[in-house]
Amino acid sequence: MIFNKIIFLTLILIFTSSLAVKAQSDEDVEKVGEIFDNVLTQSSCYNWLHYLCKNIGHRIAGSPNGAAAVEYTRQMLDTIGCDNVWLQPVKVPYWTRGAVAECRIINSKTLGTLDLSVVALGYSAATNPVGISGEVIEVKSVSDLEKMDEAKVKGKIVFFNTPMDPTKISTFSAYGEAGHQRTSGPKKAAEKGAIAAIVRSLTLKADDVPHSGVTIFDEGKEIPAVGIGIQSAERLSALLKSESHTNVYLRLDCKKHKEQLTYNVIGEIKGSVEPEKIILIGGHIDSWDIGEGAHDDGAGCVQSMEVLHVFKRLRIKPRYTIRCVLFANEENGLKGGSTYAEEAKKKGEVHIAAIESDGGGHTPRGFGMDAVPELLKGAYSKAQKWREILAPYGFYELVTGGSGADIGPLKNQNVVLFGYRPDSQRYFDYHHTANDVFESVHKRELELGAGGIAGLVYLIDKYGF
Amino acid sequence: MIFNKIIFLTLILIFTSSLAVKAQSDEDVEKVGEIFDNVLTQSSCYNWLHYLCKNIGHRIAGSPNGAAAVEYTRQMLDTIGCDNVWLQPVKVPYWTRGAVAECRIINSKTLGTLDLSVVALGYSAATNPVGISGEVIEVKSVSDLEKMDEAKVKGKIVFFNTPMDPTKISTFSAYGEAGHQRTSGPKKAAEKGAIAAIVRSLTLKADDVPHSGVTIFDEGKEIPAVGIGIQSAERLSALLKSESHTNVYLRLDCKKHKEQLTYNVIGEIKGSVEPEKIILIGGHIDSWDIGEGAHDDGAGCVQSMEVLHVFKRLRIKPRYTIRCVLFANEENGLKGGSTYAEEAKKKGEVHIAAIESDGGGHTPRGFGMDAVPELLKGAYSKAQKWREILAPYGFYELVTGGSGADIGPLKNQNVVLFGYRPDSQRYFDYHHTANDVFESVHKRELELGAGGIAGLVYLIDKYGF
Repeated sequence: MIFNKIIFLTLILIFTSSLAVKAQSDEDVEKVGEIFDNVLTQSSCYNWLHYLCKNIGHRIAGSPNGAAAVEYTRQMLDTIGCDNVWLQPVKVPYWTRGAVAECRIINSKTLGTLDLSVVALGYSAATNPVGISGEVIEVKSVSDLEKMDEAKVKGKIVFFNTPMDPTKISTFSAYGEAGHQRTSGPKKAAEKGAIAAIVRSLTLKADDVPHSGVTIFDEGKEIPAVGIGIQSAERLSALLKSESHTNVYLRLDCKKHKEQLTYNVIGEIKGSVEPEKIILIGGHIDSWDIGEGAHDDGAGCVQSMEVLHVFKRLRIKPRYTIRCVLFANEENGLKGGSTYAEEAKKKGEVHIAAIESDGGGHTPRGFGMDAVPELLKGAYSKAQKWREILAPYGFYELVTGGSGADIGPLKNQNVVLFGYRPDSQRYFDYHHTANDVFESVHKRELELGAGGIAGLVYLIDKYGF
Repeated sequence: MIFNKIIFLTLILIFTSSLAVKAQSDEDVEKVGEIFDNVLTQSSCYNWLHYLCKNIGHRIAGSPNGAAAVEYTRQMLDTIGCDNVWLQPVKVPYWTRGAVAECRIINSKTLGTLDLSVVALGYSAATNPVGISGEVIEVKSVSDLEKMDEAKVKGKIVFFNTPMDPTKISTFSAYGEAGHQRTSGPKKAAEKGAIAAIVRSLTLKADDVPHSGVTIFDEGKEIPAVGIGIQSAERLSALLKSESHTNVYLRLDCKKHKEQLTYNVIGEIKGSVEPEKIILIGGHIDSWDIGEGAHDDGAGCVQSMEVLHVFKRLRIKPRYTIRCVLFANEENGLKGGSTYAEEAKKKGEVHIAAIESDGGGHTPRGFGMDAVPELLKGAYSKAQKWREILAPYGFYELVTGGSGADIGPLKNQNVVLFGYRPDSQRYFDYHHTANDVFESVHKRELELGAGGIAGLVYLIDKYGF
């Protein structure tokens, strides 16, 4: 009899607790639905992006446009009724590309003189004012270059021509693999005495639009370095097969300036129960100094601002403080992210989670997650339940191993990190180019991303880690 | 002892059969990966689409352009080495919109005369050559109109102004809900004596591009009917609030012609084991007579052709016959689909599955499924296993309840139907408009769709239903 009673009570317990779980989950499904409905009908984020792109334009950290973007987003965060809005000072390196980027094949037997489509890489040196010319050697990879005799490289222009792998389904993976030729290739070339470097653009689109992006040199050892459009790269490579001694002329007037002062832009809604604990959402306010920084990362900024805005519109009173941070200088120094993390540590601030949107404004696919090993497993299994609630909105993927560059320095402060993952197919058509403009962002896709980030914040705020 | 032996043998059985399942699934994962790799690096489908869009252009069934599209795709299927390629005759209705689509507000106290952005709906009547004018009444829905007194409608121009619901995550759902105002609204207006109809375009994009599409009339009772751009619709609606007696002028020179002969274009690879059983893949070769029919449905056609092509390139010898069908006349009569199903029945052909791609060329989301109830449950649980293999390529969704208009008539022949489901956010920016052009289709997104359909065909062919 006792045995039966125990079974009976256990069954009741299982039954009622599963009812409770069901009710809780129904409530979550409903609330997340409300958030999406509201964002898809009431959001300002597309208009904010329009202003950032069309009234301000590109905005490298430390530039006057950068200051305009800081002021604009500060005003917007103020307007939507944040409890606190402030600017966190950040000292940033400052570099300008100048007005000139000339590059052409000269004196070819077959082609004569032919322009190549290039753009300076971030931190490239200038050439002398009249330009330089030299013989080109093509290398298939940075490690190929490393194996070469210095004598073969000295005085030459090194041409890195590794394509991104089209069979990688996530174009970010392909970018990750091929990216080192841009970030470290020119420096390795300089170390072997090259006078300049030309780097194949990191894209899968077979056009001739050149891509910029940062390249890292040892201080004082910069050489001129450009990104070259795919069609120009293939033409140059084909020519090198028939004319091994091919000369290229190059003129750039890039300049490294003294450090400038800019700001992380921060707005927050104070927590109603544990305001001292913070859930951070953010993107980066700076962009490369071509195009309009629409996908990279205007989209992530306005999505992050939108999370606070939809919480205000729906009168959601979060348990924890929800803080939006628009980081300075992601593109060429990460000073915004590192300054933020240092200050947080100094003040003893506790972040329970941080979400970055810096993968573009395309249609949602899901989230990446990262944390120190002790935290990650438990956090991941919690987040898997939330994934089910977000899946009907296109957020199917939850993978470990990726978050965002600006929030990365918080990892060692025991923060659970998320990176928003939009569909990646179109991203490298625009990334770091003159084509990264407002028109390439789709209103609903942008809003769906904002809705999913807001939904995730709602669930983290409700259940914690 | 016997008990233990049984347990032991059972465990061995479970262990070895799970090993077998694992090996089988590893092999499938590898093969599907090979298909995607090949499509992403070797496919011609983007070039085929370029030809269809740029050399032929829009191609309503029965038109000279329609004939060019039939001949081009027939030649391509022939070139890739199909075992059989043939044309199946289809008699189709034929209608032309003419060169004129004028629509303007006239004699408004506030606005004077103002052009509205419109396009004739398919099967619209012409106006008389000088045009017509009449007072506009706005209705919120077709059922609103049905409740109205005939006297209120007689002699008027009925303006249907129901927006698509932006909170539906699948824009196809929103289209399904709002679509009846275009397909049946003008007919209902004609029945109440209206002289013309204006229908709000079925889109969520707030531009002024008018959308066409079919509208169904009783024979001989056609009235002039146009789709109107969203900005024009909102302007007209706003004006009607301040000036209840608003007149609109309309001129169209549409024409219904006699029936024409066109063709379903068919190519197949014969099955190596059971060639009498068929797996069908297809799209529709016709398009509306504006734009270039890029997403609707050039994309679906070239993806279907690509399935045969990748099977040939990889030398996959299918068990069943794999047949690609490019259907005629999906847009304004469905005669291609109905003719195909009738002929199949007459010949006693057995189709085990049919897959249609007619949701645009955007990045993949998954598949819809449909079949008679006796078949659907078993087929769905089989397909769920395949879904896991396709998910890493973005094919997460497998839902019941949707396939494709052209393959729909095969349902009652006990065929398991699939509809390819790309991401839907951008589709109704282009659908049935002058903007549905080649440039709006992304090469990799198109190819990923083709890869997923080919992968699904491979798995159906291997395991059957």
